[in-house]
Amino acid sequence: MTHAKSALRGNDDKRSVPEAVVNILRQRFSGRVETGAEHCRQHANTVTWLGNEAPDVVVFADALGDVCDLMQIAAEHRVPVIAFGGGTSLEGQVNAPHGGISLDLSRMNRIVAVHEGDLDATVEAGVTRVQLNTYLRDTGLFFPVDPGADTATLGGMAATRASGTNAMRYGTIRDNVVSLTAVLADGRIVKTGGRARKSAAGYDLTHLMIGTEGTLGIITEMTVRLYGIPEQSVVATYAFSSVAGAAEATMLAMQMGGLGLARIELLDSLQMEAINSYSKMDFELAPTLFVEFHGTTAAVKEQVAVFHDIACEAGGYNFKQAEREEERRKLWKARHDAFWATKAAWPGRLSLATDVCVPISRLAECIAETEADIKRLGLVSPIVGHVGDGNFHATPVIDPDNRQERAALEEMLDRLAARAIAMEGTCTGEHGIGQGKIRYLEKEFGAEGVAMMRSIKQALDPDGILNPGKVFA
Amino acid sequence: MTHAKSALRGNDDKRSVPEAVVNILRQRFSGRVETGAEHCRQHANTVTWLGNEAPDVVVFADALGDVCDLMQIAAEHRVPVIAFGGGTSLEGQVNAPHGGISLDLSRMNRIVAVHEGDLDATVEAGVTRVQLNTYLRDTGLFFPVDPGADTATLGGMAATRASGTNAMRYGTIRDNVVSLTAVLADGRIVKTGGRARKSAAGYDLTHLMIGTEGTLGIITEMTVRLYGIPEQSVVATYAFSSVAGAAEATMLAMQMGGLGLARIELLDSLQMEAINSYSKMDFELAPTLFVEFHGTTAAVKEQVAVFHDIACEAGGYNFKQAEREEERRKLWKARHDAFWATKAAWPGRLSLATDVCVPISRLAECIAETEADIKRLGLVSPIVGHVGDGNFHATPVIDPDNRQERAALEEMLDRLAARAIAMEGTCTGEHGIGQGKIRYLEKEFGAEGVAMMRSIKQALDPDGILNPGKVFA
Repeated sequence: MTHAKSALRGNDDKRSVPEAVVNILRQRFSGRVETGAEHCRQHANTVTWLGNEAPDVVVFADALGDVCDLMQIAAEHRVPVIAFGGGTSLEGQVNAPHGGISLDLSRMNRIVAVHEGDLDATVEAGVTRVQLNTYLRDTGLFFPVDPGADTATLGGMAATRASGTNAMRYGTIRDNVVSLTAVLADGRIVKTGGRARKSAAGYDLTHLMIGTEGTLGIITEMTVRLYGIPEQSVVATYAFSSVAGAAEATMLAMQMGGLGLARIELLDSLQMEAINSYSKMDFELAPTLFVEFHGTTAAVKEQVAVFHDIACEAGGYNFKQAEREEERRKLWKARHDAFWATKAAWPGRLSLATDVCVPISRLAECIAETEADIKRLGLVSPIVGHVGDGNFHATPVIDPDNRQERAALEEMLDRLAARAIAMEGTCTGEHGIGQGKIRYLEKEFGAEGVAMMRSIKQALDPDGILNPGKVFA
Repeated sequence: MTHAKSALRGNDDKRSVPEAVVNILRQRFSGRVETGAEHCRQHANTVTWLGNEAPDVVVFADALGDVCDLMQIAAEHRVPVIAFGGGTSLEGQVNAPHGGISLDLSRMNRIVAVHEGDLDATVEAGVTRVQLNTYLRDTGLFFPVDPGADTATLGGMAATRASGTNAMRYGTIRDNVVSLTAVLADGRIVKTGGRARKSAAGYDLTHLMIGTEGTLGIITEMTVRLYGIPEQSVVATYAFSSVAGAAEATMLAMQMGGLGLARIELLDSLQMEAINSYSKMDFELAPTLFVEFHGTTAAVKEQVAVFHDIACEAGGYNFKQAEREEERRKLWKARHDAFWATKAAWPGRLSLATDVCVPISRLAECIAETEADIKRLGLVSPIVGHVGDGNFHATPVIDPDNRQERAALEEMLDRLAARAIAMEGTCTGEHGIGQGKIRYLEKEFGAEGVAMMRSIKQALDPDGILNPGKVFA
C-alpha cells in the first residue's frame, strides 16, 4: 500500500541512534536497555496492516525521573523517541520510521492513589484498565473506558484518544482524564492540573496532550474518573433483517437520551458468522445489536422495556437477554473477540481494522455505502461498530500478496475516510492518525487546521524528536 | 487592589489604535465602528471589581468575513483585538489594558442549523442560551449550559470555559462543544472538526481553543450538544444546620453516581437572607441545598427518595419540593439572582464574585476555612456554590474606598486561591483567569506549565495582538 509506506531508515539516516548514545543509555539505565532485533521488532507495529519499522533501541522506564533523563539525552543528541505502552495501536503509532528509541512505559504501572470520595484514581501511564479494575474490585467503583484490547495501557489510550464500547454512557478517554503529567521534548515536566472536576484556569493542556500520539510529550501519569458499579446491568441482543433497521433503533434510543444504555454495538452478519465459529455461539446470521443497560433496578427495567419497543418497531427480532454476570461476560467476550474471530475465519490472510465516526443520523447511509463499496470491489470485510457514537469499524481481509486486492483495499479505505468526512464526521473515531491516516488529516481539518497543529508541534518540539512521521507527514 | 491594576495605556502606548487604522476600519465596516467614550466604556469590564479599561474603538461583526478582515487589519497594524460577547465575564476578560479594538460578536447570533437526530446545533458565537432554547422549544430538546448570566453568549462561554448550575449532569461548555470555527491572529480560518460525537484525528484544537479567553483566536461559530428535555424535573430544597452537613449530603449523592441530579446548589445563610429580601421569599436562614432531579418519572421518584434519606441523615430539614414548572422557575429564579440579591443587600458597596473548585472530598473543609478567613478578616461575604462539582463562589462585599477592607479582601482572595490549589483544586472553576487571577496561574501549573502555555501563545499569536494582558502577565 503506497500510502502506508514510510521512509525506511538507512544507515545514513541521521536520526538513527549512534552507538555513543546507546552507551550513554546503557550507563544511565543499565539493564533496562535492549538492542536485540527481537526486542526492537516487538516494540514496533505488531497487530496492524502497516509494515514493522523497528526502533534501534528499547529503554524501559521505571519512574518519572527515567523519562526526564531519557528525553534530555534524546534532545541533546536529537534522537527520536517513540512512547510505547501496550503496543495495541492500529495505525502504526509505535513504528519507528526514522529509527530512534522506543520508550517502554509498561513497567510504570503503579496505582498511585485512589480517592473513592472523589471518584478518581491517579495512575502511572503503564496501568491497564483490567489492572485498575482488579485493584478497585472492593470499592464498588470501576474505570469504564474499554478499547477492546485488554493489554492497552491508560497512557497509550490517552495518547491515541481511545474509546470503545462504553463511551456512549461514560465518554471516551478524553472525557475521563481529569489531568495528567507529561514530559516534554526537552525533559521538562508539566502537570496539567489537579483533581477538581472542572477548571477554567489557563489553557487546557490536558486535552491538548490527549490524542497527540506521543508527538508533543510523553504522558507519565494521569488522574482518571471512576464510576460506581451500577446496581443493575442487563445485556440484550437483537437480530435485524437489515443494518439500516439496527441503525434506526440506535438513533431512536440516542434521541431519547440514551435510555441508560452503556453500550450499543452493531455487528453485521459476516461478523456474526465469524463470532459463532470462533466463540462457539449460535447467533442468528443477521445484523445484530448487542446492548447493555446500566442503572438502578427500577430504571433499567423501565429502559429495557422502552428499548424493546423501539427495537421491535425497527425490525428487531430473536431477542435474548442476560442478567447474570456469567452470561453477560460470555456475550461480551464474544463481541470483544470480534477482531480475533475475523482473523481466525480467514487464516493466512491479512485483516486490518479501520474506523470512522459520523453524526448518528448519517450512520445507516454511511454503512450502506461502505457495504456497497466492499461488494463492488470484491472485498471481504465484516463491519462492527460502537453505533451509539456513530462509530464503526470495517475489517477488510485481504491476501497481502495480491496486488489487485491491495489496490481495492486502498480504494475502499480512501473512499471510506472521504465519505465520513463529507458527512461531517471524522476519518477516525478512536484509532488515531498514526501513519495510516496521515493523508486524510488535511481533508478533515483543511490546510489551516493542519498548519495550526504543526505550529504547536514546532513550538513544543522544534527538533521533531517526539514520534516523528506520525500524525503529520 | 494592587494586583488588579493593569498598566494604563497612555497616549504614548504603541498599542493604541492610530487614527489611520480607525479610518481603515470605518472604510471597511462603515456604520459598525464606534469610538464614542460611552460605547468604549460599555465594552470594557462592567460587572466586576476590576477597573474599567476601555478599548479605543468598537467594531460590530455581522459575519465570519468581517472577523477575518478585522484580524488582517489588526495584524498588519499590530493593534490589540479583544473579543466581546455579552460582557458578563467576571475577571476582566473584556478589558483593554493596552487599548485596541473591541470586536463585538453579539450581532453574529444566527442559529445556523439544528440537527435534531444528532442532538446538536450549529450556532454563531453571539447566540445566547436563552435564544437557543427559545428556538428549540418545539423540538423537545434543550441546551443545558447555564452560567447564570442570561446575556452571556455561547462564544463567550466557550472562550472562558464557563459552566454553571447544570454542569454536574450535563457537563460544562467544554463537554458540550463538539467543534468550533475560529479566526486566528493572522485572519486564517480554522474549523476544528465536524459533528461526530467523538474523534481521534489530530490535535484537539476544539479544546485547545476553549478557555483561552480570546488569546489564541476569535471563536465565530460552534456546534454544541443538545439534550432531550427530561420527562420529569423535580426541585427540592433542604435547610441544614451547617455547611458541612450540606457538603456531606452532596458528597454522598455524588458517590452514588449523582442520582440523576441535574443541579445541586449550596447557599449559606447570609446568601439566603439576601435572597429572601431580594426575591421576596421566606426561606429558613440556614445553609440550604437547592437540588433538581431529571429523568423518567419512575427514575426521578426513586432518586428523590434516595436523596431524601441522604439529606436527612446529614442533618437536612425543612424539606420543600416543587414539580410544577412555575414553582420550579420561581425557586431557580431566586437562586439565579443570588449575585444581584447580594448587590442589593449592601447598596453602595462593591461586591465581587470569585470562584474556586476543589475535589469534592475537600469541599466542606475548603468552605469552612474560607468562612474562618472571612470572619477573621472582618469581611462580609455570602457563599454560594455548584457543589456537585466541588465549585463554590464567595461574594465579598466591601467599601471600595476603605483601604483596610481592600487589603483584607486581597488577603482573603489570595488565601482562597492558594487553599484550593493546595487541595489539588483550581483557582477558578468557571470564571477564568482574565486579569484578576493571573498571579495564581503559575502557582497552579508551575513555571513549566505556564511556559508551555506561553509557547503555544507565541506560536499562534507572535505579535501578541489577541487580548493582551489576559491569562498571562
